[in-house]
Amino acid sequence: MQRLEEVTDPRVIDGRKIADRIEAEVKAEVERVKRKGVEPKLATILVGEHPPSKLYVKLKHWACRRVGIASEDHKYPRETPQDEIINLIHTLNERSDVNGILVQLPMPDHVDERDVMSAIAPEKDVDGFHPLNMGRMLIGREGFVPCTPEGIIRALEEYKVDVTGKNVVVVGHSNVVGKPISIMLINRNATVKTCHVYTKNLEEQTREAEILIVATGVKGLIKKEMVREGAIVFDVGITWIDGTVHGDVEFEEVLEKASLISPVPGGVGPLTIAVLMEHTLRAAKLQHNLL
Amino acid sequence: MQRLEEVTDPRVIDGRKIADRIEAEVKAEVERVKRKGVEPKLATILVGEHPPSKLYVKLKHWACRRVGIASEDHKYPRETPQDEIINLIHTLNERSDVNGILVQLPMPDHVDERDVMSAIAPEKDVDGFHPLNMGRMLIGREGFVPCTPEGIIRALEEYKVDVTGKNVVVVGHSNVVGKPISIMLINRNATVKTCHVYTKNLEEQTREAEILIVATGVKGLIKKEMVREGAIVFDVGITWIDGTVHGDVEFEEVLEKASLISPVPGGVGPLTIAVLMEHTLRAAKLQHNLL
Repeated sequence: MQRLEEVTDPRVIDGRKIADRIEAEVKAEVERVKRKGVEPKLATILVGEHPPSKLYVKLKHWACRRVGIASEDHKYPRETPQDEIINLIHTLNERSDVNGILVQLPMPDHVDERDVMSAIAPEKDVDGFHPLNMGRMLIGREGFVPCTPEGIIRALEEYKVDVTGKNVVVVGHSNVVGKPISIMLINRNATVKTCHVYTKNLEEQTREAEILIVATGVKGLIKKEMVREGAIVFDVGITWIDGTVHGDVEFEEVLEKASLISPVPGGVGPLTIAVLMEHTLRAAKLQHNLL
Repeated sequence: MQRLEEVTDPRVIDGRKIADRIEAEVKAEVERVKRKGVEPKLATILVGEHPPSKLYVKLKHWACRRVGIASEDHKYPRETPQDEIINLIHTLNERSDVNGILVQLPMPDHVDERDVMSAIAPEKDVDGFHPLNMGRMLIGREGFVPCTPEGIIRALEEYKVDVTGKNVVVVGHSNVVGKPISIMLINRNATVKTCHVYTKNLEEQTREAEILIVATGVKGLIKKEMVREGAIVFDVGITWIDGTVHGDVEFEEVLEKASLISPVPGGVGPLTIAVLMEHTLRAAKLQHNLL
């Protein structure tokens, strides 16, 4: 990976650079609210020892430190019963010093993630997965929306892409990325096709896309011949192999056709974390009537 | 309109017939819960004098009578302030004899429908428009979902259409039909494209559809050349002209190509009302711990 070359190519979305600007804005605003006596704080919950999850949680705490948000880290062994996690969430819901609650996904198999997400107080749901926040998003009242989809929207805005009437293809229909980004783009009047593992002739479907968003976790799923000339491509996939991370898009070959493309790493990942910082700040302001 | 010919044509979805069966089931179950001392009741709210809305509310009360559900009808003048409507909803939320609350849409322009929907207690939200119910639907926990989309799903089930991997095109991206039916079909692993007024080359997009769902309110928008041979077509459009109702699909000509088509009237409309009856019964059972 020729990292330096990549980030200086104007077709490559520099997620880190956009994230830095968002974080700088958050940092300045955190300083302002601190002068008003508000100390924003994020609590994270990690269940189990999944190495990428441990890394993501660590990255979120580092981001908190960068922007001046306090954070605390709740770690539980893999076999922790769901009730215990939900009890912790209830405690964090009650604590006025905690403004945002983030449960790192995926959870172990014996836990129903939707039950856990539904336990978070909607006003502390900085990851935007509570059904009330999801539903507000669906009806076009976007508040706390999932961070990765919002990161994609921010990147589109940054590059002044007007999505109105654009043919968008989303590959992946998860609750975390595929469904929310589909809805957020429908809300912005894009024409959105949502594809997934059951879709027939995926390569024909993806070739329609003026904007292609891929969030499947299948390494290298999207090849050059599946991409339309001039397409904008967001790679939200993450596959870890021997400590290195791979996206869902064959980056080098798709770059030849794309007009804009997000790399892995350094694309959507940093944006997701920057948006999380923004949400935590907003939660703190909301809870202190500063909005 | 040769009504008799239509309903005996096996390609024409007989919404009335499916609705009759659903209502018969609801009626039998209403009798059972009444023997347990539960009297299901629906409260409707109509603001203004919009003649089709008055008709729809009347049809819903007639349906209640058919299945043995009690109903009460709250009518307000067009200029009623939003607060007053929300106050009524709060009162109905509190009343234990009212199980379901339905606000007839559209509301007058000075009212924000989303505020009104959000005021209904989620467990009495038989129309499925509360953001919490919408969000539950989005994450795949469908409970009270909007009645028209559920009616379409029921018709697909009735005709044993497996939507898995099917190319679906939804035309219209309203909160009431377009967005929820898109999500419900994504939940069922269809490949779903959501189109609307900003979509480019609509006729090319709709021709892809193995299942085409049209909910725009533009009379006769969908013509024969926009429909794929053998497509399944749902017409959710309703335009009133001189007291007669027209759909979004040019029925006679599209019938030549469709393998299955829902007429207007007599298609999705009766299903919507039958589903509403089912939801009201379910709300009553839920509130009396009979589920």
